[in-house]
Amino acid sequence: MLGDRLDIGRFTASIVKGTPYGMDHLGDATRSVTAYNAVFMSGQAVQDHYPDDFAHCYGCGRLNAHGLHVRTVWDADGTVARFTPRPEHIALPGFVYGGLIASLIDCHAIGTAAAYVEREAGRDIGDAPSPRFVTGTLTVQFLKPTPLGPELDLRARATEIGARKVTVEVTLAAAGEITARGTVVAVRMPDSMRVDL
Amino acid sequence: MLGDRLDIGRFTASIVKGTPYGMDHLGDATRSVTAYNAVFMSGQAVQDHYPDDFAHCYGCGRLNAHGLHVRTVWDADGTVARFTPRPEHIALPGFVYGGLIASLIDCHAIGTAAAYVEREAGRDIGDAPSPRFVTGTLTVQFLKPTPLGPELDLRARATEIGARKVTVEVTLAAAGEITARGTVVAVRMPDSMRVDL
Repeated sequence: MLGDRLDIGRFTASIVKGTPYGMDHLGDATRSVTAYNAVFMSGQAVQDHYPDDFAHCYGCGRLNAHGLHVRTVWDADGTVARFTPRPEHIALPGFVYGGLIASLIDCHAIGTAAAYVEREAGRDIGDAPSPRFVTGTLTVQFLKPTPLGPELDLRARATEIGARKVTVEVTLAAAGEITARGTVVAVRMPDSMRVDL
Repeated sequence: MLGDRLDIGRFTASIVKGTPYGMDHLGDATRSVTAYNAVFMSGQAVQDHYPDDFAHCYGCGRLNAHGLHVRTVWDADGTVARFTPRPEHIALPGFVYGGLIASLIDCHAIGTAAAYVEREAGRDIGDAPSPRFVTGTLTVQFLKPTPLGPELDLRARATEIGARKVTVEVTLAAAGEITARGTVVAVRMPDSMRVDL
């Protein structure tokens, strides 16, 4: 768990701020992590807190009128995002288009990287503007065809958190069955990508 | 080159059928391959020849009114596809959305797998319905930000052709510079994905 990698001072401060569980949970490592996850499950999405200049992404930008609006929130075991494909997001009749699956995995992973980095710093989503990551490498394994119709359920967690790079593992499920897995190496947005609007 | 893996009988038949070069080219292996490439550069797109039932893909289906309409044609060194992103295909201001890049690489690779398999069978694009592949694994390396505005140029070639799987390497360039590379393992569409419309 990430909990044992935290600065306990910041962790405690965050727990206090959220206070859905009392300070008495902090004596027990397992229960602390439970409390900790609960604090960080506010239901706010990473993408709601990107600065306006970085909120135009076709996959997840809240300011992109044509986009997919992927929203990454904390869940008990990591992060979750849900998306219902539109009828045109078809590959072959009855199945979801692989490019959409790759896009959802990509944006949810980038949001997840931001969420974990903020959590390591003791901040919940929404406490500060979400840090912006970009994709270094995206790998998607299509395990079986994804049926077109049901809401898709994406789950992610960071497996490696460095100063510049975060590795995120993602599963995508439809109707309760995992149909694709992704791995994303997310990289802190370089200054070269900062364009004044 | 793929030329030396061909059934020369079929190869000859195809050359004769196309006849942009004379039969006299066939005595020289190098020149044969040149002729061979020329024959297979008819400008027809793989996706124009998917059977109607399999022509709805959001990325490359000619029958998807909302889709991207990726078109894969032969070029001297493999295949090429070109695409001009729409303004909404933005990641951060000034740059193309990574999910779009992954989608273009995916569909162009799938079309490329079909083109190479047909070429190995001595057929040019359009000689028969294009065989339908699906994506097994998609890997994209984002080498540098892709500027939003210029037409994107995708080049691909098959590096391994098996009975069931074809591995395809793709580059994506903008304004003459390669900004992303992809590897796709394309798999023959399984019968389980065949749905009667």
